[in-house]
Amino acid sequence: LKSKLPHIGTTIFTRMSKLAEEHRALNLSQGFPEFDCSPDLQRLVDKYIRSGKNQYAPMAGVMPLREAIAKKTFELTGREYHPETEVTITSGATEALYVAITTVVNPGDEVIVFEPAYDSYVPAIELSGGIPVFVTLDPQYDSIDWQLVATKITKKTVAILVNTPHNPTGNVFTASDIQSLAKLAEDHNLYVISDEVYEHIIFDGRAHVSAASIPSLASRTFLCGSFGKTFHTTGWKLGYFLAPAALTAEFRKIHQFLVFSVVTPFQFAVAEYLSEPEHYLRLSDFYQQKRDLFLKAVEGIGFITKPSGGTFFQNLSYQNLSDENDVALAERLTREFKVASIPVSAFYSQTVDYKTLRFCFAKNDDTLLKGAEYLQGVI
Amino acid sequence: LKSKLPHIGTTIFTRMSKLAEEHRALNLSQGFPEFDCSPDLQRLVDKYIRSGKNQYAPMAGVMPLREAIAKKTFELTGREYHPETEVTITSGATEALYVAITTVVNPGDEVIVFEPAYDSYVPAIELSGGIPVFVTLDPQYDSIDWQLVATKITKKTVAILVNTPHNPTGNVFTASDIQSLAKLAEDHNLYVISDEVYEHIIFDGRAHVSAASIPSLASRTFLCGSFGKTFHTTGWKLGYFLAPAALTAEFRKIHQFLVFSVVTPFQFAVAEYLSEPEHYLRLSDFYQQKRDLFLKAVEGIGFITKPSGGTFFQNLSYQNLSDENDVALAERLTREFKVASIPVSAFYSQTVDYKTLRFCFAKNDDTLLKGAEYLQGVI
Ligand SMILES: CSCCC(=O)C(=O)O
Ligand SMILES: CSCCC(=O)C(=O)O
Repeated sequence: LKSKLPHIGTTIFTRMSKLAEEHRALNLSQGFPEFDCSPDLQRLVDKYIRSGKNQYAPMAGVMPLREAIAKKTFELTGREYHPETEVTITSGATEALYVAITTVVNPGDEVIVFEPAYDSYVPAIELSGGIPVFVTLDPQYDSIDWQLVATKITKKTVAILVNTPHNPTGNVFTASDIQSLAKLAEDHNLYVISDEVYEHIIFDGRAHVSAASIPSLASRTFLCGSFGKTFHTTGWKLGYFLAPAALTAEFRKIHQFLVFSVVTPFQFAVAEYLSEPEHYLRLSDFYQQKRDLFLKAVEGIGFITKPSGGTFFQNLSYQNLSDENDVALAERLTREFKVASIPVSAFYSQTVDYKTLRFCFAKNDDTLLKGAEYLQGVI
Repeated sequence: LKSKLPHIGTTIFTRMSKLAEEHRALNLSQGFPEFDCSPDLQRLVDKYIRSGKNQYAPMAGVMPLREAIAKKTFELTGREYHPETEVTITSGATEALYVAITTVVNPGDEVIVFEPAYDSYVPAIELSGGIPVFVTLDPQYDSIDWQLVATKITKKTVAILVNTPHNPTGNVFTASDIQSLAKLAEDHNLYVISDEVYEHIIFDGRAHVSAASIPSLASRTFLCGSFGKTFHTTGWKLGYFLAPAALTAEFRKIHQFLVFSVVTPFQFAVAEYLSEPEHYLRLSDFYQQKRDLFLKAVEGIGFITKPSGGTFFQNLSYQNLSDENDVALAERLTREFKVASIPVSAFYSQTVDYKTLRFCFAKNDDTLLKGAEYLQGVI
């Protein structure tokens, strides 16, 4: 069998989680919460399962959830997405991203991708015969040079893929970033694929700046979101996709043959749970405390740190401390020091070594303190 | 935006279900049960949700479910699939089929497809740049002419896609069919993609003959199954994929970027529920009674019927009764006679008119009797 993805192995998340399990290490690698979702939300699922919501949902999702998402998005961005024609429920943001990419990319098309990048973007582009064109940023980068980004655009560029808050750097777009993006996309007539799964996890008083918030940008944007990170339900695989009706129509043509529809009872449960905005608006505070706890606990070790601005990831760099490359160090820490992380270099297309490890702080405080303790004296 | 699937609209299932809803018609169109899944199974889901099984499952699925599927498959086919490397949990059979097709098909490759065909096969082939080559069968066909199938094979043929029990005809492979398929695939070195989602719904004492049951065939087969039809849970989107390790490795490379993983609590619940084989072995009797009830109820109307051999669909043909084409008739029946079906012609690549309607009998007896009553005198 000729491989469609010859250079791809198992994802770094699967590998590090497995290694953590084998070595009974604290798992601060793969991004999922250690704590459970709300019992209220659990009861809602049970209610809908018991009331018979167990057959196919409509292909685009159940209407109460599409309406709830449209309402939330309007309140947060001022953009009205029409539930009937512009909101689609997906099997997690991963499916939304895959379908969005498949919808816009044809063989030979180029897509601008910032790296470090979430690992599903590039294979999805390649499976459609597209070519990722990278804008390479340091894991500790301060700001995006949009003029440099513009130099990467060619006649073949069809889209630019962005992610804010950004995994794995924890950087977030500013209002100025989003304006630059809007201008660039407009000047070059590009589609924008925007991964905003951490929209509700953003720190130090910043506000999430969605691609939906600027009309000229929203009109060309494929917006991908998720409830997994927001409601501590990464295993429920519930995501969503927002785009103008014409783009949504093409997206749905592919979505309908990829999964057809998405778990029905969870859709109804999350729709009802969304009626209380506190359920997501408190999330930033919750995670900011965890970030701070973790940062304080590792303070003395000597890592170079830049506090995460959003997401539930914190990078720790050690180029001042050791020559060991980060892939090797991540594995050694898991085996010998019983704490698993993700080497940030795994998020780059080229073999690089930024000597930076990504730690997930969606963990109980005890676990974070223990993890920091395990890290003492390792370098 | 250049359409990837220019000739594709909304699926016939979505359209007919919507029309049924608009006209308050009995919905015997889209294939899903009217009755609910077992309360025991519902309680199992609740148990696993309450015990915190709400985060990402492993990419290939939770081990208890992979083991339960391997055990069931071994008991039914004699083939041992290794849970670690040969069993993968998918977001319904639809995702399994999409990924299997994407795994084997490269631009220019030909895939043999029998029609009438389930509607996701062809778009999936086309999205990978492949070319479907059709073997066209009458909806009431008696047997497959494997020598004719052989004539469709060219140097470019990479795979043959089969479906047994077959939607929408209700035909099932015999032992001789599966041997012919095995020989053909071996002689021409083809992969086989086998859609067996109705494996547990088969009538009149027939046995399901899986592609897994012949070793030489199993070694080249991508087998796609599902629990939606078996446990009355079409809305849970839980399917599975079985293939030799080398094929599974390539399949998983794509699956991991398409959905990454599948709803965790359902996986654990279904794994436990599978431990009692009665839960699926009684299904054929259950549906055979419904088929018989429906056939008897429509007996006097004058349709040409061939009792369904498997699946929960029954075709009724009327070429002896009317000139109206089946797409028009299906819509008219929904609007005027308040009973929705699927025009079988929708399952063909060319505009044809077999004057045949597919009725889903996964409905309460009352509904089936009422549906038959509504059909009296329409033609
Ligand atoms: C789908 S597993 C990866 C989870 C995640 O978002 C991350 O760790 O970056
Ligand atoms: C995914 S909707 C279609 C359900 C089905 O299998 C059918 O009606 O044929």
